[in-house]
Amino acid sequence: MIRAMGLPIPTPFDLLSPTDLDVIEANADDILRTIGVELQDDPESLEAIASIGARVDSERVFTDAATLRKMIEKAPPTFQWQGPKGQTGIQVGGSGQAVISPTFGPPRVKLPDGTIRMATIEDYRQLVEICDESAVMDSTGFLLCIPHENGAMVGHMEMAAAHIELSDKPMMGTIISEEALREVACAVGVTRPNPPCRLIHMINLTPPLVCQPNPLRCLRASAQLGQATGVWSYMMMGATAPVTLAGAFAQGLAEVMVGLALTQIYNPGAPVVGGIFATPFSMQFMGPTFGTPESHIAHIAGCQLIRRLGIPTRGDGMLSSSKLNDAQAGYEGASALGGSLLGGADLILHGAGWSEFGRLYDIEKLISDCGLMSGR
Amino acid sequence: MIRAMGLPIPTPFDLLSPTDLDVIEANADDILRTIGVELQDDPESLEAIASIGARVDSERVFTDAATLRKMIEKAPPTFQWQGPKGQTGIQVGGSGQAVISPTFGPPRVKLPDGTIRMATIEDYRQLVEICDESAVMDSTGFLLCIPHENGAMVGHMEMAAAHIELSDKPMMGTIISEEALREVACAVGVTRPNPPCRLIHMINLTPPLVCQPNPLRCLRASAQLGQATGVWSYMMMGATAPVTLAGAFAQGLAEVMVGLALTQIYNPGAPVVGGIFATPFSMQFMGPTFGTPESHIAHIAGCQLIRRLGIPTRGDGMLSSSKLNDAQAGYEGASALGGSLLGGADLILHGAGWSEFGRLYDIEKLISDCGLMSGR
Repeated sequence: MIRAMGLPIPTPFDLLSPTDLDVIEANADDILRTIGVELQDDPESLEAIASIGARVDSERVFTDAATLRKMIEKAPPTFQWQGPKGQTGIQVGGSGQAVISPTFGPPRVKLPDGTIRMATIEDYRQLVEICDESAVMDSTGFLLCIPHENGAMVGHMEMAAAHIELSDKPMMGTIISEEALREVACAVGVTRPNPPCRLIHMINLTPPLVCQPNPLRCLRASAQLGQATGVWSYMMMGATAPVTLAGAFAQGLAEVMVGLALTQIYNPGAPVVGGIFATPFSMQFMGPTFGTPESHIAHIAGCQLIRRLGIPTRGDGMLSSSKLNDAQAGYEGASALGGSLLGGADLILHGAGWSEFGRLYDIEKLISDCGLMSGR
Repeated sequence: MIRAMGLPIPTPFDLLSPTDLDVIEANADDILRTIGVELQDDPESLEAIASIGARVDSERVFTDAATLRKMIEKAPPTFQWQGPKGQTGIQVGGSGQAVISPTFGPPRVKLPDGTIRMATIEDYRQLVEICDESAVMDSTGFLLCIPHENGAMVGHMEMAAAHIELSDKPMMGTIISEEALREVACAVGVTRPNPPCRLIHMINLTPPLVCQPNPLRCLRASAQLGQATGVWSYMMMGATAPVTLAGAFAQGLAEVMVGLALTQIYNPGAPVVGGIFATPFSMQFMGPTFGTPESHIAHIAGCQLIRRLGIPTRGDGMLSSSKLNDAQAGYEGASALGGSLLGGADLILHGAGWSEFGRLYDIEKLISDCGLMSGR
């Protein structure tokens, strides 16, 4: 939106004052010390965190925030994200420009003729091609949709092939399992020591204050391979996090700091992206809502908190709760994307195409979102 | 949006630095001194501006910015806007809360069944009723649409009657002529000296650097009656103003300062609202465009510039270039409204219902815009 018109907003919007941020950080520090974070069913994570002095009680770890910060300081403030065959790629962080990647994860697609269906591998390849064509998209992402064939999910290598074959733009990696992650890394030539960064992996923690085993293992593999590890908390305020923004920020920061520190224990200097994602949980229909005023504020303040850790920040694109590409979708999308741009996000996830709470990839919306973002 | 959820953004976003603002102000001062502003066909305006030392050459006035600023300082930083029958009303400026008023001016309405027609007085009354019902609208505005009967425009007193009869909320006044303005003021009880403020009048200047006779006369009548005078420049960047934002801001500030100073010459202490409105002019279809990235920035920076004059600031609501209440309308509307709220606008004009470049009042959109703004 702002970038493509050659009109970058000169500085991020510092919504919260340094004092506000100090208070939230102090509360995160308290949470880390007194409540702790659970690292589930992954002894290596417990050993790693104990190695920097954390107290481990069963699977719960109690940590000192200053020690975590010292570890996170080892992560680079910016990194180069190469294309899958070593193409130049793009800089993440430190450029004042947001890197935009497409929506990932919807199980279904909506074709331009209105048909909604379980995604196929052909749909998947078409989405990659559209992202490759788009002047707005900097990446082709990964798991654009969940392609199925004969009722079973299409394998990660077939998805990876689509990105490698059809585009020179940087791609993300799979997080379905540690083994799959390593296979895709191998396919993009991440084999030698100190390899370049060709993949970003999305590590979603499980609020409140839990890291599940598969994300922990994928985080470790990503860091060990020297690939970028995106660590974020997906908090539903009122369900898996406090209903208040300040409370949610403190919890999310605590969660993310543990994940980020782990990456640097495994491989000091490995690239990371941090994100605090908080969206209200609707008590009416029992689900998260997107593009709301609260999350607009969360996008801005989340970037502020992550920036204080000295690493690139995550933002979000045209998120919406609408089931159609209608006025609500446009309004909510602009609110989410606008908050991320104002906050100075370095990497925008779910940039375009998101529909129906993220359960539907709307191809027409992917194209119109890109058009709106480019200001055309 | 943000207000209705009980989540006001704590401070306006200072997009431009004090140094940026100094540069723009210095350029506005230069324009006032060396290029001047034309006050067309209204000798009383020329006399008034000469009375504070301006040099008048035919209809062009060359002024000293410091003198204008000293006059504008006499205007109150905040004022109470009463209902048409003296109801308590609402505070404009100084509250940290935007006062929201509806779209005005479209000649046609779109009914919920899809019919588009020249507006009637029944349509007009329905629009007033919807604004009265809405929890988001603080005002019923004025000239919501241009009602016609037998091919002729319905008179201003019939419009005023709709606001007075159907709502207790504050209303705006007419600016069709000085006489009409005084008649409506009389109808809402603005008769005695030092009356309360029951009307806000919109005075649109005519960039570049021109004030036309009817706005000049209405401005004078509004100020003399002690009613609030909204003074703004409606700049189309690339047509009636420089294509660059910084250039347009300097021009618009110069124009608005002359208008604001006039109000205080006529009646020191009379309430005012200032606004710098700048939207890109499309070289493709030769018209202004709304809700663009450039105007998002203009809404924020315009509020900053006006705030430095110490008076309430104008913002805008769900503006859009779309002909439908679609994703484009939602996205562009959120961009315009969001910029205004971030800028800390005290009075939001064209809050809801705006369609087709402001030429169509879409009743369904009026209702859905209100819904989106309330976060419901």
